Amino acid sequence: MSTFDPLRVIADLEGLAARTGGPAGSRRLAWTPEWVEARNLLREHLATLPVHVEVDEAGNLWAYLRGESTDTLVVGSHLDSVPKGGWLDGALGVMAGLELLRALSAEGTSPITVALVDWADEEGARFSRSLFGSAAFMGTVDPKILAGLVDKEGNRLVDVLPQHGVDIDRLDGAQRRQENVKAYVEVHIEQGPILESMGKGICTVTGTKGIERERLVFRGQAAHAGTMPMPMRRDSFRAASRFALAVAEIGDRHDGVTTVGAVACKPGVVTAVAGETTITLDMRHIDAGELAAMFAESKAAADEAAAAEGCTVEWEHIFRIPPMPFHPLLLDAARESVREVEGHDIELPSGALHDASETARSIPTVMIFSSSTNGLSHTPEEDTPRDHLVMAADAFDRTCRRTIDLIRTGSL
Amino acid sequence: MSTFDPLRVIADLEGLAARTGGPAGSRRLAWTPEWVEARNLLREHLATLPVHVEVDEAGNLWAYLRGESTDTLVVGSHLDSVPKGGWLDGALGVMAGLELLRALSAEGTSPITVALVDWADEEGARFSRSLFGSAAFMGTVDPKILAGLVDKEGNRLVDVLPQHGVDIDRLDGAQRRQENVKAYVEVHIEQGPILESMGKGICTVTGTKGIERERLVFRGQAAHAGTMPMPMRRDSFRAASRFALAVAEIGDRHDGVTTVGAVACKPGVVTAVAGETTITLDMRHIDAGELAAMFAESKAAADEAAAAEGCTVEWEHIFRIPPMPFHPLLLDAARESVREVEGHDIELPSGALHDASETARSIPTVMIFSSSTNGLSHTPEEDTPRDHLVMAADAFDRTCRRTIDLIRTGSL
Repeated sequence: MSTFDPLRVIADLEGLAARTGGPAGSRRLAWTPEWVEARNLLREHLATLPVHVEVDEAGNLWAYLRGESTDTLVVGSHLDSVPKGGWLDGALGVMAGLELLRALSAEGTSPITVALVDWADEEGARFSRSLFGSAAFMGTVDPKILAGLVDKEGNRLVDVLPQHGVDIDRLDGAQRRQENVKAYVEVHIEQGPILESMGKGICTVTGTKGIERERLVFRGQAAHAGTMPMPMRRDSFRAASRFALAVAEIGDRHDGVTTVGAVACKPGVVTAVAGETTITLDMRHIDAGELAAMFAESKAAADEAAAAEGCTVEWEHIFRIPPMPFHPLLLDAARESVREVEGHDIELPSGALHDASETARSIPTVMIFSSSTNGLSHTPEEDTPRDHLVMAADAFDRTCRRTIDLIRTGSL
Repeated sequence: MSTFDPLRVIADLEGLAARTGGPAGSRRLAWTPEWVEARNLLREHLATLPVHVEVDEAGNLWAYLRGESTDTLVVGSHLDSVPKGGWLDGALGVMAGLELLRALSAEGTSPITVALVDWADEEGARFSRSLFGSAAFMGTVDPKILAGLVDKEGNRLVDVLPQHGVDIDRLDGAQRRQENVKAYVEVHIEQGPILESMGKGICTVTGTKGIERERLVFRGQAAHAGTMPMPMRRDSFRAASRFALAVAEIGDRHDGVTTVGAVACKPGVVTAVAGETTITLDMRHIDAGELAAMFAESKAAADEAAAAEGCTVEWEHIFRIPPMPFHPLLLDAARESVREVEGHDIELPSGALHDASETARSIPTVMIFSSSTNGLSHTPEEDTPRDHLVMAADAFDRTCRRTIDLIRTGSL
């Protein structure tokens, strides 16, 4: 019988919030003293267990519970948070992983090695590079891009990292941690409203959606708001408005999501027609073909919107990640666990990126979601009903036990 | 025969550009040393004429050419410019007025008094209060609002004005200049593309359009771009987009103009649905009834756009000025002059505000437009074909002569 106790996970999360959170939200921005403080708390817990703790070349914190074989299951998530973030987010996965180590070590020698990882800087909230630690672990970071990153105060990432023992020229070393890793399991809050709207507490996550992130610049002709007749205008904001409505329809029709979240007009004054309007576009889908279709249709919609207003449009690529479907055997393990715990087969793709999006590139990966109250995350109001957290931790434990079995028997 | 010489007007404009302009545009921002320098040049010209020069309590510069009666025709415009503005804008009206004084004084004693005025701070480019001097002259400024104005560097208007001999508690004194004033005539560039598109050089201006200027705040719910399904979104930017397209249609249908020129989204990041979108709205029409209808329809359109996206909308009033139709007798004088000079009866309302919008509140007023090349103004590219400037100055002179006659004969 598992000695894993979901209530200890909640107690540890509350302890973390007491030290690095509070009514104004979590204070665990990566590469800051408060983030270090959160890790100190984690280290205090780990010091009571028979584990070996190390920090890798990318700043990821690892705790290894050696088992009968060196084959390794990795569990975890991230302690770092956005400024004024929620108390659950990545902390849930780390504390659930900690409880797994606690349970396994109490139960004797594990058949395989289990490692807890606290990924460094998942949020990218300070330097705009999310999934930093897990991407370095997978070898998908570009040191040249990292070298150019600065925070709002003008501090360069390359100057801040050494204060935490990280050298961007040596990130490659983190990839060595992949050796012997056979699977990765993460539990996380949904950060969206779907489970809540279904009246459910947990589900299996089928993968993380692919993302296309672009900047569109519509160009027309700036003009005096009083003297330029309507029929002679080339209004870039009207072109952007047409596009925003068209691309929402595209996302809806493909059962994906499309978002125009940031807009800027030039000259951007009440008395002038906007000569130039820049918008951001974020499109996501769990299916690569659907995402590609959405992208192609949005290109056509932008051309059409620009032409209708006598404008041009230019695309600037920001970011792209393909859909990351999770591993079939681990999906079965998660489904069975969810069924045991809450009695249904609900599964959802994750609209948010997670460190699991990185590991899933080549390591068998799966995730479990708990519901999110009001669908909120990255805010002090972020919450999940206690019974849903208990179910999520329980399903995580069960999924891990099944995964350990799959590894032990050589199926992974 | 008039000794008014349009070519001297152009020469004076070129002289002004040589001293306070250049390839990067005019440098005559009000209440700055370069604006004072432009006025010094005007004073040098005026020193050669038998005129009496004074600066009123609002910083308006007056040059009086005494005539046989104290009844007064005022002509002029403004030397101040936006940063990197054009060489014509308000300077054309001032230099044409200067030439009128020059011609009249050379021709003997004028039957009535003629005053040239260089209105202070027409543009409002530094402190966001346009028509400063002419509004003070008409008694339509609110010292309480002026007291709160600051420029981009944080300088307060009330601290800057005393450096130019202006005390906001004594602006009322400028209204005394209205005494004996029987008419106001101004020549200006169109600052729009209509005359050029008709292949014409000049026209009569029927009045200045009324303006409604508002700020609209659409409020929905900020949400994660990846985790919030399209059907559950309350996207404030989509609501704003719907409104922008609807209000353009309203302006077009009423033969007015409507502009959404500035937009800001919150949180305003690529990864979040905009919970709040603020836009500015500028609506203009020469007919008060049509403007009111446009305003009412835009209210309904905003409600509809907000409701369609599950959002709310709130209006914040920024600025309002009613349409200012010009004086029937002066319109006839201008029409006859335009007909003599270019042989047609074209007349247009002004979409831009002018100091004439203030004087027309109670003083018989009229304006003449010249064309604007490519419809551009407030930019170094601002220009007008030389032959159109000559025609505009000529039509201005003729309109002034007719106005002097109307005043002399007691018709005004």
